[in-house]
Amino acid sequence: MSVTAAPGFVAAGVSAGIRPSGKPDLALVRSLEPAVGCALWTQNRVQAAPVAVSKRHLAEAEPQAVVVNAGVANAATGRPGEEDAERTAVHAAERLGLEPAQVVVLSTGVIGPRLPMEKLLAGVDEAAAALSPGGGPAAAGAILTTDAGPKTALAGAGGFTVGGMAKGAGMIHPRLATMLAIVTTDYPLAPGEPEGFLRPAVERTFNRISVDGDCSTNDAVVLLARRGVSERDASLDGQFAEALESVCADLARQIVADGEGATVVLEIAVRGASSSEEAHAIALRVATSPLVKTAAFGRDPNWGRVLAAAGSAPWNGGFAQLDAERLRLSFDGTPVFADGSPTGLVPTLSGSESTIELELGLGDGSCAYLASDLSYDYVKLNAEYTT
Amino acid sequence: MSVTAAPGFVAAGVSAGIRPSGKPDLALVRSLEPAVGCALWTQNRVQAAPVAVSKRHLAEAEPQAVVVNAGVANAATGRPGEEDAERTAVHAAERLGLEPAQVVVLSTGVIGPRLPMEKLLAGVDEAAAALSPGGGPAAAGAILTTDAGPKTALAGAGGFTVGGMAKGAGMIHPRLATMLAIVTTDYPLAPGEPEGFLRPAVERTFNRISVDGDCSTNDAVVLLARRGVSERDASLDGQFAEALESVCADLARQIVADGEGATVVLEIAVRGASSSEEAHAIALRVATSPLVKTAAFGRDPNWGRVLAAAGSAPWNGGFAQLDAERLRLSFDGTPVFADGSPTGLVPTLSGSESTIELELGLGDGSCAYLASDLSYDYVKLNAEYTT
Repeated sequence: MSVTAAPGFVAAGVSAGIRPSGKPDLALVRSLEPAVGCALWTQNRVQAAPVAVSKRHLAEAEPQAVVVNAGVANAATGRPGEEDAERTAVHAAERLGLEPAQVVVLSTGVIGPRLPMEKLLAGVDEAAAALSPGGGPAAAGAILTTDAGPKTALAGAGGFTVGGMAKGAGMIHPRLATMLAIVTTDYPLAPGEPEGFLRPAVERTFNRISVDGDCSTNDAVVLLARRGVSERDASLDGQFAEALESVCADLARQIVADGEGATVVLEIAVRGASSSEEAHAIALRVATSPLVKTAAFGRDPNWGRVLAAAGSAPWNGGFAQLDAERLRLSFDGTPVFADGSPTGLVPTLSGSESTIELELGLGDGSCAYLASDLSYDYVKLNAEYTT
Repeated sequence: MSVTAAPGFVAAGVSAGIRPSGKPDLALVRSLEPAVGCALWTQNRVQAAPVAVSKRHLAEAEPQAVVVNAGVANAATGRPGEEDAERTAVHAAERLGLEPAQVVVLSTGVIGPRLPMEKLLAGVDEAAAALSPGGGPAAAGAILTTDAGPKTALAGAGGFTVGGMAKGAGMIHPRLATMLAIVTTDYPLAPGEPEGFLRPAVERTFNRISVDGDCSTNDAVVLLARRGVSERDASLDGQFAEALESVCADLARQIVADGEGATVVLEIAVRGASSSEEAHAIALRVATSPLVKTAAFGRDPNWGRVLAAAGSAPWNGGFAQLDAERLRLSFDGTPVFADGSPTGLVPTLSGSESTIELELGLGDGSCAYLASDLSYDYVKLNAEYTT
């Protein structure tokens, strides 16, 4: 499991003393073979220092290693924060015999404070010395903040392996900046190729989950793949793409299930929309509606709220197309609204998963989304904090 | 106060037995002089039956009376629901000596069930008999559902009066469809003129509030004005517009303060955006962020969450322009973030009002928004309901 599942990758996780709890807070992942890679970043206009630094590095060189610290996000720290991130990469590169531009740095934790550089660099030394093919689980445990536990995933494809780790439970704790995922594979790719595989996988997985609709300043998904030395068997590309998406989907679902205060994972499926963009807008609106999410917490198959949310999905300067006379809405497979009227059926919701299916009858557009519910514990986690 | 503050308007509120509690649930407002008017409706793609019927009426004739029932929203009721709404207008028109098209019908309450027509029509009879110039407060009390109390407002303009009533506390209770406002004035207008005054006032008031970001199937704002028989003194138009906006703003603020579980009214002011559209997008994003709203509940001046929300405001297919290096963020007048770094100042938040000011330093765009916080009681009100 985790980032050392594929041959050729080593990792380590150590306690550098960045998190006040003393829990593991520094992870290092490296490819032993020449690697190629890419990263997809938060679209937030406020981007953390490591995001800015790593983007520059990736533009200069193919990544061979990733340093992740938890506890301090190094976000909203200005130029000094960027210097800290760069110094981290330089230090790790020295220890690993790499160029600084070959190192990706990621941070997650509290927004605002500077990184404790002395502790952090000592942690990098310790992690570099501990790198091993069995270090994946330790690395997965060292990138967490308020997560309930580590999140790892694994899939195989035609004799190759895709492994990953992630952290995140919504934009979580006050001033915490959050979602990170690192995926490694021995599937051989050429420079420039990884993004063509990672982008669609992320689009259908990490970009289709919502705990609270908030998008952090530090979100990143990194893919490291073995660098192909000769032509690979491109007939396996489809299998690899599937395995990659499966790993991303697995990690994304774990993030939702570990959402702050989450008691249920909602699977929202919109079908028959005028376009896939409109299906996405509607699914997103339903997934982020506080009324739908509180109803889910109360295990209430509240179709009125789903209709009201779906009917007001912002799209293209207005709302996405929807015709109440044509739509069909089901909870856990039981139709509750069809042909413009309630069916009168009342599904019994229970358990930790629930599906909301909305068939619009307008076209071919579809979109699936995962969301957590909105519970007392969500409010508690996010309000009970005194500065 | 209320809809009978301006001379020439009568109103009544009665208990028709539509609400199970037996509380007042039917209001009637009428103009004794020839009136002109208009309404602005929910943009939700799922629109209640009275919305569809009243839109047709307003296209045919100038409105002279408004019937409002609480308890049942007559939404998602299909064609039979529209027939019920039309029958209500026909019945009220008979009692008042008007044409059916001169009657606007509004409903608020539970989505799904049909209106209890026998009770409702008897209520219309009773209300028609009780119409009086002192009936405004009774009418304001008869349009409520889970509101804590009636919402009325009053403003004067050059010898004329603008009075209004509203109801709404978010999209409130399970399957409840919610925000209604009716404003009356003796300021004389010609047919076609009311909308030119109402639309900008609503744009800056009712369209700038958020309890939970949900937009109901029944939302409506109706303006009735005395029909001018000769040229009016147009030099008073500005004063009238101001008075109208003041009444709308007053009612809008009351709705936020009475938001479900609300403990604080957040005033969010965005200035210096690249455009006013981007300022609006950013203010809306901050106003609807669960993380900002839970922090407000905890009285936490959590600037990291405001930055993260502001930086991810959907606009024009991407995010609204924002540059962390240039922005300045203040809570209750105390700057917490400026020139790309935290100021280190920690404002003490308390009381039932709080301001968040975001100065972007990019242009002239500005927008003000009112929002309630997200509390345990919000979750309680919306989750603790069993179907």
